[in-house]
This record gives sequence, C-alpha cells and structure tokens, in this order.
Amino acid sequence: MTTFVFGHKSPDTDSTGSPLIWEWFMNHTGQTAAAKLLGEPNTEAAFMLTRWNLAKPEIIDNVADGQPCVIVDTNNPAELPANINGADVRAIIDHHKLVGGLETAGPIDITIRPLACTATIMHDLMGEHVKDMPESIKGAMLSCIVSDTLEFRSPTTTPIDRTVAESLAEDLGINIADYAAEMFAAKSDVSAFSAAELLRMDSKEYAVDGVNFRVSVLETTSPKMVLDRKAEIMEAMPQVAGEDKVNEVLLFVVDILNEEATMLIPNDLSKRVAEKSFGADVNGDTVVLPGIMSRKKQIIPSLKL
Amino acid sequence: MTTFVFGHKSPDTDSTGSPLIWEWFMNHTGQTAAAKLLGEPNTEAAFMLTRWNLAKPEIIDNVADGQPCVIVDTNNPAELPANINGADVRAIIDHHKLVGGLETAGPIDITIRPLACTATIMHDLMGEHVKDMPESIKGAMLSCIVSDTLEFRSPTTTPIDRTVAESLAEDLGINIADYAAEMFAAKSDVSAFSAAELLRMDSKEYAVDGVNFRVSVLETTSPKMVLDRKAEIMEAMPQVAGEDKVNEVLLFVVDILNEEATMLIPNDLSKRVAEKSFGADVNGDTVVLPGIMSRKKQIIPSLKL
Repeated sequence: MTTFVFGHKSPDTDSTGSPLIWEWFMNHTGQTAAAKLLGEPNTEAAFMLTRWNLAKPEIIDNVADGQPCVIVDTNNPAELPANINGADVRAIIDHHKLVGGLETAGPIDITIRPLACTATIMHDLMGEHVKDMPESIKGAMLSCIVSDTLEFRSPTTTPIDRTVAESLAEDLGINIADYAAEMFAAKSDVSAFSAAELLRMDSKEYAVDGVNFRVSVLETTSPKMVLDRKAEIMEAMPQVAGEDKVNEVLLFVVDILNEEATMLIPNDLSKRVAEKSFGADVNGDTVVLPGIMSRKKQIIPSLKL
Repeated sequence: MTTFVFGHKSPDTDSTGSPLIWEWFMNHTGQTAAAKLLGEPNTEAAFMLTRWNLAKPEIIDNVADGQPCVIVDTNNPAELPANINGADVRAIIDHHKLVGGLETAGPIDITIRPLACTATIMHDLMGEHVKDMPESIKGAMLSCIVSDTLEFRSPTTTPIDRTVAESLAEDLGINIADYAAEMFAAKSDVSAFSAAELLRMDSKEYAVDGVNFRVSVLETTSPKMVLDRKAEIMEAMPQVAGEDKVNEVLLFVVDILNEEATMLIPNDLSKRVAEKSFGADVNGDTVVLPGIMSRKKQIIPSLKL
C-alpha cells in the first residue's frame, strides 16, 4: 500500500517540497510513497515546482482509516486531515514545538529537530543517499531552506541549514542570492489573493491567557504591495476571526530585505498586544517592529496581553 | 544550569541505564548533565549499577519550573513528574508510541524510533563518540539492550539492537548468555516485595472501550516464585486498582526462558479478556499464553473486552 507523505494545510515551500523529497527517498530505498498536498501551494511553492520541473502533488482533503502516512513539517492535528488519528502514521519529521494531541498506535519513527527547515532534517536522515538525489530534489531541498531561513536572515537559521544549502547550491551551480530573489519575488506576488486569503495564507492559531489569536505572517520583498491594501485587510479581520472561531487576527508583514515587520493595528486589543509584546510605541494603524522576522522564534514567544 | 536526564517513574534497567548513558554523553560533549531517577530502581537495574560500578542517581519526585530536562524511555506525562510541562524539556529520546499530552515551549530534539531499547537509539545518536564510552557506560548500554530484548527473545528485538549489543559484548569481553542469566536472576529475585509492589513494578495503564486497565508484567526466569504467591497477589488486585483509580489490574508473569506468559484470572472480567484477546481456553485461576513476551508488541495491541 502506497504511503502518503504530506505537510500541513497551508502548503508553503517547505510543506510542498519536503513531501516530494521524502517521496523520492522512500521510493529510492524500496518503499512505495506518494507526496500529497492538503491545500493549494502558495506562490513561492508553485514557483519552486515550475523551476525544478516537479509535478504538483495531488491535493487531498482527508485520509482513510488505516492509510499509511508520513507527516512532515507539523505535528499539530489541527493542521492535518480530520481523520489523522484513524490513519496509520508511520513517521513524523518536523521542526516545530511538540503540540500534543497526535497519538500513534505503536512506536514509530519520529524526528523533530530545532532546525530552520524540515528538508535540512531530511538531508541528515538520508545519510549517504543524499549523493543520489536528482537535480529536481536537490533544487526542492535548496528552495525549502532558502524559504524557511529567508536566505539565512531569519533567527531560526542554524549553521546546519546554511551548510546544507550552500553545498546544494554549489552542486547545482546556483547563486543563492539570485535564486532567493526570484523565490521572494514569487512569494511577494500576492495580487491575486483576497484580503481573507492573505490573512489565512501563512497563519497559526495561538492562545494567550484564554484569548485565541490567528497569528498571520506575510513574508515579502514588497511590503508596500500589502500595506497599500491595509484598509481592506483590516476590514476582513473580524470576519476571518469569526469564521475561524478565534478572538482576533494579528497580521505581521515581514519585510525580508529590511529585516523588520509591520504589524497592523486595527483596534485597541492589537495595540495593547503590540505594546506589551514588543515594547512598541503605537501611533496610528500600523507599527514597525525592527528585527522581527520569525513567528516561531520571535512573535509567538513574545505575545502578551 | 545542569540538565536533568531521567526516564519513567518505575525505573527498570533501560530507564535507569539510559539516563546514565546520556549524562555521560552530554558531559563528554561539553554540556552539563546529571542523571536522575523518579523512583527506586528494580532489582535488575540495581544489579546493573553494582556490576558496572555506577553510582545510583539521585531520586527526585518533581522538577522545578524552568528546570532543563532530557526525557528518555517515555513520552507519557503520566509517567513523568507532575510539573513536567512547567519544566524546560530540551530533548526526548524514546521508543514508545506517541501518547500525546506532552507539550514543549519551542522546537526541541525529539527522537523516537521503533527499536527495542532507548540505549540502542542513543548509540546511533552518539555517532563517533561511541568509541569514547568508558567500560561502565558500555556495560550499562549492553544491560539495557539485554533487558529490553529479553536476550533477543522479545519480538520487539530489531537487528540493530542485536548488532549493537553483540559489538558491546565483544568489546567488553562479555559472554551475553552468561551475563543475561545473571541479570535475569537479579530481576527474578522479587521475594522482598509485597504483592502490591509486584503489581506496580512494571505496569502501564491502558483503556479498552472505556475500561481502564493497569497492565502489569513480571519478567522472570522463576515464574514459580511469583505464582506460588498468586492467592496473595489476587487479593491485592482490587485494592491496587482502587488506589490507582483503574477498573482492573491484569498481571502477566513472563517466563523468559520458556517464552510464554501466565496470566492471572481472578474474576470473570479477566477471564473474558484472556479469551477475547488471546483466544485462551481458561479453566481455573491462571492461563498460560504461549509465545507472549511483550506488553508493547503483543499484549496491549491484542487487548479486547
């Protein structure tokens, strides 16, 4: 029976590329695997697929009882198919905090590492097989690392992520700076999305003192393109919050090149969060947070009411 | 700040030896670590400590807020200090199913593998450093593997566990069969324990259709020594069940050398469990289950009502 390999429900580059990498590795080592997606890949992930001639994996919306699965880039049941605890989860490869809630029927292979990128962990797990990777898989791995580290700018970056990316780039004859610029341009082209889609594109739920937030991030080299639409986005926030059953949506527009985030301040609650969490001095409906680039390392651990 | 390394609350050989192995490895690689125990080691674990001149780790009953910890041989909060989610859990190394319930503040190192023994996973994680292990640590590692695999008889045994144990034994100049016999004799010497202590010595809670069981196992080369006390043990079962807030205690006396288990049948519920789970033909207050040696691989997955 074919093992499905998939990431989370909002497929960014790592959650699209890592299933393809692991699909290749499993098939290469005599197992039968198929990468799947739990949603439409974002514009950067779509760019990666085209650039490396990778077919877009099938999008599935649930898994059958007993379906063999490998979960990558998450361990959070809320980000996985509804029936995940009914499936036969064979392995988990991830770089997020342990959320709890996922259970397995027996002991399985679980590897979680505090690295920037799932693909970097896979590079380690593959051992000698990394030398057999075709160009397309090397390209996917490089893309995942460049994306998750924001070209080594994010504080989540470890020396291991950087070393793996640099060796892949050398192998592929790719200039990382040029390639990163192409990727970030693809990620920044969000003109086709509605305000509600922007708020859900890269978003995680997080509770502080009983208040549920949807913490949304847009990483871009063109913050102006998003901020020009701030009125429309702020208007969509209460609606998205209501539909997604959270109390408040927070949006951080991360300026990749200038290494800062602009937080939208639609109301008093978000103003208080900005002041208490980041010591920000808020005047008006946006505030710039210098140096803030990572939800995982900087935003979530700081959130206060 | 010193990192505490500990296993579960009923320290067997793996949950006593693995913290000592990882303490050595962390200190060897420039981290400051101290092995701890969450209870008195069992007789086999105590034998290992004496045999390899290892000091018994301090027994602790809780962890302070923010205490750096490495958890080994479990991922189950019920088997860990009450304040474990308040501690700073830095890593988990385990070979049990993912139970859910444990959360971490950020991404950490988690390695769970379907191997027989935590110490075998550590051997892999240590990489080149294994060659630096002193005799005492090699002895602890060998002991953990011999114990958890019941000298390679348990169906949990993998070729990796066996290969690591055989190479350690060769290094140490130890005959595995002779050493295993000494270990199992130590484990079988349970004369000093009360019936209630025997029922809690190696025990895991497990629910079937809303009925909570304490599934207890005694691995021994002298099943007669335990079974001669069956009247006293059966009398203690309802009391232990009441104190530990489960519906029923099940006891499996595993005969290591004859590769079978004897299950105690004190009442109709345990009789039905024996019949439905193992297809046993029950007459009287015990039943022999041929080939049954592993709670993890054979008993728990079979339990039915």
